[in-house]
Amino acid sequence: MKSSAALKPDPRLDLVLERVIDVPRELVWAAWTRPEHIRKWFAPAPWITTECEVDLRPGGGFRTVMRSPEGRDFPNVGCFLEIVPHERLVWTDALLPGYRPSAEPFMTAILVLEGQGKGTRYTAMARHKDEATRKKHEEMGFHEGWSTCLDQLVALLKKM
Amino acid sequence: MKSSAALKPDPRLDLVLERVIDVPRELVWAAWTRPEHIRKWFAPAPWITTECEVDLRPGGGFRTVMRSPEGRDFPNVGCFLEIVPHERLVWTDALLPGYRPSAEPFMTAILVLEGQGKGTRYTAMARHKDEATRKKHEEMGFHEGWSTCLDQLVALLKKM
Repeated sequence: MKSSAALKPDPRLDLVLERVIDVPRELVWAAWTRPEHIRKWFAPAPWITTECEVDLRPGGGFRTVMRSPEGRDFPNVGCFLEIVPHERLVWTDALLPGYRPSAEPFMTAILVLEGQGKGTRYTAMARHKDEATRKKHEEMGFHEGWSTCLDQLVALLKKM
Repeated sequence: MKSSAALKPDPRLDLVLERVIDVPRELVWAAWTRPEHIRKWFAPAPWITTECEVDLRPGGGFRTVMRSPEGRDFPNVGCFLEIVPHERLVWTDALLPGYRPSAEPFMTAILVLEGQGKGTRYTAMARHKDEATRKKHEEMGFHEGWSTCLDQLVALLKKM
């Protein structure tokens, strides 16, 4: 989508994490799109990601399983919508692979990467259908969770 | 999406209209993507399409209003997902413009156009989240409705 207007966050419905990180956006893109990387940062510790499948094309599936510290598994399946390498990644759990509507839609995630010096301006947005769902996501710990995961992503890339 | 496997209809969940029509697919594409054309064929007579807005890009909106013979208006808003000119058009009402999850998801529509001689193999598929929704759509008159609309589309193109 070329218009930035349609992607402008609505504070009533959207949650946003924006930060400048000192790793290049090509590496951030790799961390977000390769299962072997995703497994290492995608769940906020002490949670872990036990499974990850990526079919990186519009209509392709994005499947993960997160395990809680108590050992309970939380599977999640979504559908990729837009893939602009090193720039934008969009997927949603409102659709399953092959664009089929899902039974329990929760959010669309939009990741935008912009080069800033040798680093990256990292913007991750979660869009919801209504205010109640946005609030629920906030209470589930969106800000702390997504921020912790980004710390983990940066730490992983600095070791590589 | 390059793999045809993911777009293969599931008879339990999907409804399909497939027909070979004797108009070229470039014209069929125009009929499906230009509001001034869509208004003339998109609702099965005696229903009419009173409004149509097309923002033809991934994440862009597809809005229509259909009016029943009794004068009741039925607005519909969806989001374009894939646009491959003259070949494939995908949109869903599970998402609103800008990819936001919608409050009342019903279906994803996938239109596939293939050249066949001077005509077009026309395949239109409606995907649903479950069997109950597929059945409801069938009972609402999917087959007759989409078939009537296709007749109207062909008639329109033959006059052009």
